Amino acid sequence: MKAGKVVLALDGMGGDHAPGVVVNGADIARVRYPDTSYLLFGDPATLKPLVDRRKGLAAAVEIVAAAEAVSADDKPSFALRRRRQSSMWLACQAAADGNADTVVSAGNTGALLAISMFAMRMLEGAHRPALASFLPTSRGETVMLDLGANLECDADNLAEFAVMGSVFAQVLLGLDAPKVGLLNVGSEELKGHDELRQAAAWLRRDGAPVNFHGFIEGNDIGAGVVDVVVADGFTGNVALKSIEGTAKLYTGFVRDAFRTSTFAKIGYLFAAGAWVKLRKRVDPRRYNGGVFLGLDGVCVKSHGGTDDLGFAYAIGVARDLVRYEYRNKLVEGLARLRQVTSAPEKPEEVVGASGGTA
Amino acid sequence: MKAGKVVLALDGMGGDHAPGVVVNGADIARVRYPDTSYLLFGDPATLKPLVDRRKGLAAAVEIVAAAEAVSADDKPSFALRRRRQSSMWLACQAAADGNADTVVSAGNTGALLAISMFAMRMLEGAHRPALASFLPTSRGETVMLDLGANLECDADNLAEFAVMGSVFAQVLLGLDAPKVGLLNVGSEELKGHDELRQAAAWLRRDGAPVNFHGFIEGNDIGAGVVDVVVADGFTGNVALKSIEGTAKLYTGFVRDAFRTSTFAKIGYLFAAGAWVKLRKRVDPRRYNGGVFLGLDGVCVKSHGGTDDLGFAYAIGVARDLVRYEYRNKLVEGLARLRQVTSAPEKPEEVVGASGGTA
Repeated sequence: MKAGKVVLALDGMGGDHAPGVVVNGADIARVRYPDTSYLLFGDPATLKPLVDRRKGLAAAVEIVAAAEAVSADDKPSFALRRRRQSSMWLACQAAADGNADTVVSAGNTGALLAISMFAMRMLEGAHRPALASFLPTSRGETVMLDLGANLECDADNLAEFAVMGSVFAQVLLGLDAPKVGLLNVGSEELKGHDELRQAAAWLRRDGAPVNFHGFIEGNDIGAGVVDVVVADGFTGNVALKSIEGTAKLYTGFVRDAFRTSTFAKIGYLFAAGAWVKLRKRVDPRRYNGGVFLGLDGVCVKSHGGTDDLGFAYAIGVARDLVRYEYRNKLVEGLARLRQVTSAPEKPEEVVGASGGTA
Repeated sequence: MKAGKVVLALDGMGGDHAPGVVVNGADIARVRYPDTSYLLFGDPATLKPLVDRRKGLAAAVEIVAAAEAVSADDKPSFALRRRRQSSMWLACQAAADGNADTVVSAGNTGALLAISMFAMRMLEGAHRPALASFLPTSRGETVMLDLGANLECDADNLAEFAVMGSVFAQVLLGLDAPKVGLLNVGSEELKGHDELRQAAAWLRRDGAPVNFHGFIEGNDIGAGVVDVVVADGFTGNVALKSIEGTAKLYTGFVRDAFRTSTFAKIGYLFAAGAWVKLRKRVDPRRYNGGVFLGLDGVCVKSHGGTDDLGFAYAIGVARDLVRYEYRNKLVEGLARLRQVTSAPEKPEEVVGASGGTA
């Protein structure tokens, strides 16, 4: 465990409801985590009155002037080259330079990925970053990655994502040996892409730094069959958004059902407590904290439309990753992975690896 | 519209609850559709007593002896070569030979795909078959394909799937110009695979035989943004199963919530009618009828674990596809697609086609 304060660089101007949500989220977080302090990047004239309004917050926050902000419409390449004085760039730079331990932003996702990769660089042994987040399942919470940072992934990328997700789940869910699954299709005759089979073969080897469950199917995500779901960014993004869309659809169906009759409305009133519990269980703010894994540093992406509590959760994720030394554990895991993948290939491994979802 | 009776070849021995579910499903369907008659393939000694038990069914059914059955564990290649006398093979053969108009089976999916492709062949202009099904959405129902018949698809396959799905939705949902979307990822910087961009460029051309909406994201499926969702079989399978898993998860969450307190239980009782309505709306049996599109004939795959009513729905899908001349409409659509895709390429098309989900 890291000693001393955790210093968080916050992009004060990123997100739909910035800077209010950023300041208020920091205020909630510093009460929750007294071991944190904040560098808040943005326009001081806007930020200072907001900070001063929250009692006790000013002592935990240092405002750092940034002349501009990345907008939601900025292309990543534009933001990377032309927004060097933005609150997002300067916050990432602070984390890269060691002035802060981690950066949190609710701004433009693509820009944040480009800028944080450029400023922080990749961690030794990691070739591509992956966007990871939590999902609710019937057994608790599951980590899923990559959610869209890389459309096409090779077997190396997928195996590295498995290690990143596993370390992430160890640190944030407190699991000793999180079960890791590779997302695939289930029919016997459809054995998955080559890169999935190769990654699975590596992860099955003795000494692999993850507790590898094997292939899983889409329906296994919600069932909580594994603690970490690994996919390429295209598949992961489609799965995540399909899940979000279905959650919304079913919530709507239930609401509609309770509006159909007077009896149903009375039932709804009796069950009000149950609804509150249900909403808490699937509260999207609790799952607010996408993280770019694989960078040489910790960068947390909050949803652009989040509220105060959601931003505070994102800060909590960043703080825990620093406090429980995610980075060092990942360096170690990736080194172990490299030992395993560089061992001589056994030709039967990959061929035999395809039956996992039969 | 096709005149005369619709003759359905039924795989009497396929599925977890065969032959009972097949016979009972046929009995429900022949009452619902008096214009249907059935060739029932399987073991006569088993089937005849079941048919005779349902009053009036024997007159609509001809039992055809089949010496064996494809098992759930048979590999597709094995079933294709070694189960030539199975109820599944003979039913597909009957549809291919013109003795029946269509085939319905609740048996082994991979085996059914292999056998139906071999027996019926592909339709002129279609290169690969696609597995299609319906999903409930907030605006009604959406067709999704391919759900797993082809792991890797090129632009031609995707464009053909768009036409297949469009004709399918026209026939079964009664829509004049169903909106068709290609499933992609949404972030601006991630523009989707080349084959998606090429397929989109073709479908946007003048004269294309579909009402092309553009790219959609996973969450647009449940929102009912389009009537037809097109994806390669890997992506479609993952999306479908993620949706199914989430639906199950949320149903469980709601059930749990209503068990937490006495008040909630009372509310549940008051709301019983609402629950019945909700369950009806998302009744999986109503979405029972995966269809292999692109074959020169109609082959409907019922879920293996379906019940009588579910199997009757699958029969209804097969009957409607024959009655409303799905095959001829698809031949016409594919011919129009070929005219459009064979027109000279405009180089700017594909490059400019990537902004659809921005």
